[in-house]
Amino acid sequence: MAKTTKSNTALEERPGFLVRRLHQIYVAIYLQECERFGTTPVQSSVLQVLLAKPGMDQVALAGEVGVDRTTTSSVLSRLEKRGLVRREASREDRRTRLAFLTDEGKAMIRAMKGSIAAAHQRLIEPLEKNERRQFVRQLLTLVEANNDKGRAALHNL
Amino acid sequence: MAKTTKSNTALEERPGFLVRRLHQIYVAIYLQECERFGTTPVQSSVLQVLLAKPGMDQVALAGEVGVDRTTTSSVLSRLEKRGLVRREASREDRRTRLAFLTDEGKAMIRAMKGSIAAAHQRLIEPLEKNERRQFVRQLLTLVEANNDKGRAALHNL
Repeated sequence: MAKTTKSNTALEERPGFLVRRLHQIYVAIYLQECERFGTTPVQSSVLQVLLAKPGMDQVALAGEVGVDRTTTSSVLSRLEKRGLVRREASREDRRTRLAFLTDEGKAMIRAMKGSIAAAHQRLIEPLEKNERRQFVRQLLTLVEANNDKGRAALHNL
Repeated sequence: MAKTTKSNTALEERPGFLVRRLHQIYVAIYLQECERFGTTPVQSSVLQVLLAKPGMDQVALAGEVGVDRTTTSSVLSRLEKRGLVRREASREDRRTRLAFLTDEGKAMIRAMKGSIAAAHQRLIEPLEKNERRQFVRQLLTLVEANNDKGRAALHNL
């Protein structure tokens, strides 16, 4: 375990502060590991979900990935422009738009699998081996307990 | 402990994904608890650091809060416009700008203390009491092990 550092401001004892820092660190690690794919963590979450569940509508997709609908729509537009995703109106309800991976999108997310796994792994590697699983389980407990919160776009400044 | 949920995409087993969600949740909780102050988590981190260390220069402040310099400068501008912070050039080096809280800034961050503590507390409340301290210690381990990473502005879309 790390020794506790001293500071007058003690930001480092605050879980919210630490979670923000750890998220930044994850983004940095992800961008290193997945550099050659030119994607962001949210983009690859969208691709992963669409690989497993093709034809998901945008509202359900937003829920699955844990971002708001505007963000989901904007992420899908970027992926569509790159030819990785296509969208079509639902036959049952023309207002609902369904998202699918293109063949190129499928190939890319499959090619990314190892890099994405490496990024997640590197994030928790500094913990003792036997602590890692428990830590992830605790993260899951906290996210599930608050799953109704925090899907809005973030304005952090 | 929470039961594990099943999903084909298994995003919820990925620590990076969970940390992103937990950070969003923290921002939502913070905005509820601190609503009447009209601040963001990063703004209150800056105010807390400046209360403990008045006259910190912007580069050191960026390091302490864990954001990049551009973000720090933009956060300070917002706080300055609200009359909470003032900046002045260092006597030793006119290019270095030092930041201080105004009396209003000091009064506000003191008044916020309980709300900020409540937000941090609520984030980890779903864990068993005896797990909370360990969880925060593990967060700290992971942040310290990677403290050189992830200070760049985030581009998450």
